[in-house]
Amino acid sequence: MLIDPLETMLPRGVKDFLPVKAAKIEYLDQSLRRVFDQWGFRPLMPAALEYLHALERGLGIGLREKTFRFDDRQSGKLVAFSPDMTPQVARIVATRMRDLPLPLRLRYSGRVLRHAEQQSGKDREIFQSGVELIGLDSPEADAEMIAMAVSALQAVGGRNFTIDIGQVEFYRGVVADLELDAGQSVALQDAIARKDASGLHMLLEESTLNDRAREEIAALPRLFGGREVLERAERAVTNDRSRRALDNLAQVLDALDSDGIDDHITLDLGELRGFDYHTGITFQGFLGKMGRAVCSGGRYDGLTARYGHPTPATGFTFNLLNLLFALDRKLDGPAAVKTDMLIVSRGVPKNSSRALAHELRKRGYSVARELLDRDYATSLDYARKLNYRYVLVMHATAPHMQLLSLSDNSERQLTREALLDGTVEL
Amino acid sequence: MLIDPLETMLPRGVKDFLPVKAAKIEYLDQSLRRVFDQWGFRPLMPAALEYLHALERGLGIGLREKTFRFDDRQSGKLVAFSPDMTPQVARIVATRMRDLPLPLRLRYSGRVLRHAEQQSGKDREIFQSGVELIGLDSPEADAEMIAMAVSALQAVGGRNFTIDIGQVEFYRGVVADLELDAGQSVALQDAIARKDASGLHMLLEESTLNDRAREEIAALPRLFGGREVLERAERAVTNDRSRRALDNLAQVLDALDSDGIDDHITLDLGELRGFDYHTGITFQGFLGKMGRAVCSGGRYDGLTARYGHPTPATGFTFNLLNLLFALDRKLDGPAAVKTDMLIVSRGVPKNSSRALAHELRKRGYSVARELLDRDYATSLDYARKLNYRYVLVMHATAPHMQLLSLSDNSERQLTREALLDGTVEL
Repeated sequence: MLIDPLETMLPRGVKDFLPVKAAKIEYLDQSLRRVFDQWGFRPLMPAALEYLHALERGLGIGLREKTFRFDDRQSGKLVAFSPDMTPQVARIVATRMRDLPLPLRLRYSGRVLRHAEQQSGKDREIFQSGVELIGLDSPEADAEMIAMAVSALQAVGGRNFTIDIGQVEFYRGVVADLELDAGQSVALQDAIARKDASGLHMLLEESTLNDRAREEIAALPRLFGGREVLERAERAVTNDRSRRALDNLAQVLDALDSDGIDDHITLDLGELRGFDYHTGITFQGFLGKMGRAVCSGGRYDGLTARYGHPTPATGFTFNLLNLLFALDRKLDGPAAVKTDMLIVSRGVPKNSSRALAHELRKRGYSVARELLDRDYATSLDYARKLNYRYVLVMHATAPHMQLLSLSDNSERQLTREALLDGTVEL
Repeated sequence: MLIDPLETMLPRGVKDFLPVKAAKIEYLDQSLRRVFDQWGFRPLMPAALEYLHALERGLGIGLREKTFRFDDRQSGKLVAFSPDMTPQVARIVATRMRDLPLPLRLRYSGRVLRHAEQQSGKDREIFQSGVELIGLDSPEADAEMIAMAVSALQAVGGRNFTIDIGQVEFYRGVVADLELDAGQSVALQDAIARKDASGLHMLLEESTLNDRAREEIAALPRLFGGREVLERAERAVTNDRSRRALDNLAQVLDALDSDGIDDHITLDLGELRGFDYHTGITFQGFLGKMGRAVCSGGRYDGLTARYGHPTPATGFTFNLLNLLFALDRKLDGPAAVKTDMLIVSRGVPKNSSRALAHELRKRGYSVARELLDRDYATSLDYARKLNYRYVLVMHATAPHMQLLSLSDNSERQLTREALLDGTVEL
């Protein structure tokens, strides 16, 4: 089989979005910005390009490996494209915004790039839209992030959602004194994250851990469910660090006013997939049956310190392409690609159709003019295929124009004045 | 002098934008999209990453040299970040949209990257927002592009603007039969573009060109001004190709209804700075006294053919950072970074301030809550510094709340009901 070279023009993991999908992404992006604005968050736009050494201060091992990097012809240094905007926000806050009074409420929206395995099918280009709340260490601040994520999900029409809340300090407390080597540590975390109880059991059997440690770790995949998880977890551990994590989690839930969203909240103390910079609560939002999170976030109290200015912080980000995938057809209505009118003029001086289009646009309508001399049937077919709402026909000989609705094929006669007065309902 | 490493964390030619500037860029971007929508243009989002071989089909020599490129770890091929979105749109139209009826009206908005000389001080990250009108070869289509650029400039508050129109075929007609070598050609174009008459004179003296050719080329820097340029140009050349270019230019001006914007239009037949893909009319928009164009565009009838699907096309793009630079202070009002209210609760249960904030947001207000326990004076100072409009104080003991306006320091007592009923004017 011959593969058309034009069809294979894009590297894997990136996509072009044609109008129908592009309009949906824009709609999601703008809806989220509106929610973030209403909560008092202000925009920040980090540079697309960074020195690798600066960027890496804020990245964990996992993301360092996924960073697009190259020699900068201009400076001779290694530069990179950010795989995550949170470290960029931390850098900016720590260097250029350190004199502002706290807390800072910041939002951002943009694309980041991550290497992905050839066969993983994962996106390499990720559309992020998120917020950071800088300068607060209280459970109330974490609760604000979760409540905002819920508001945002509701604003874009998400109904059937789940917010999965973890606390990375709980696990860290369990393993703190165990002297696990790196390989063991990764294998355990992986089995816990996959809730693979039998795999985890085998790993623990093979280990030299004492019985108490084995028991505590083996409990992790089951510490998943409603608020009752807090009690079970309390009984499952003995160390103070894990207990403080549970207290913190309970306080965040108290501050969340979870009435009404209680059914949407699950606790998961085996949720360890946060970035390495997380230091407390983490959460992920899911829609419908889709396994990939549409949003994720958590507390990261040590990140701005890596850029020389320690301050507590919490935040979260939406993955717009996952959100698009989860909601897709539901956005057909709110993000429809339509234009109100195509003006077809038959023997009318061109400047009169230009002037009419101009006046209609001033009144808020979207209007394009038929610039080709072709028969009416072809223009009509064009307007239908490209999803115009109306075709407006101007005649040289008649004082009236015809307005044809493409949704129901109804036709009206009207004057220029009636159309511009706003007395005609469209 | 010691340079703080935190201050030099970004490579040259890229910038972080803090809230005040970021909000202005967002405002410009959204205002332009709204204009483009009103003219019937639909969004397209090209991938951030392309194979270099695919991208280079659509780039001229100048932009190829400025393209960020690197080995793709995944595919082993060279990949690149686009320095210009028009070739990406051409690729998408030619491959994935070729079966749609023409014309296509498409808009895009995003960042592109270009290498720049270390000392040039030029931006390497360029924020583009533009449109392409695909499938029409008529002067009317070019006129639509210029009229849209004018509408867009007016929509963002540009008053003192100039649109500088050229026609690349005019110059190509003059030099078509002269067998200039590449070095000569570049030197001539450069002198003409800079309107350096004496430099141009010297170049021509040194050349082996005949007198007629010298005369025609020497005239180019002076073919600049109002519509009378067309007549002067007509007299200055003898070849058919240049004459056809003048006819085309006259037709575009006729189709432009330049009444009202006549003062803003200049013709410039020595304007040769278009990308190599231009094949007819080109134009650039300038604001105030700023020398860098805020928008530019033109006809490019051969570009989609490079991707296997020939169709005429015209378009233009705004450079958002140049636009920001030109308008900056004028955007202080329309793009102000403000939040309506900071809610400070004094001894009130936290869930009641959360609930009030929630209700206010539902009514369209932007509201943040004071989450720190600090004295009122500090909260007030915070709200002023971060440009809140009001501070709303809830008291445990009083049924009324206080609403303090930070613009005039006036204070009102009001009930929760009055605030939510919309009977209080903010």
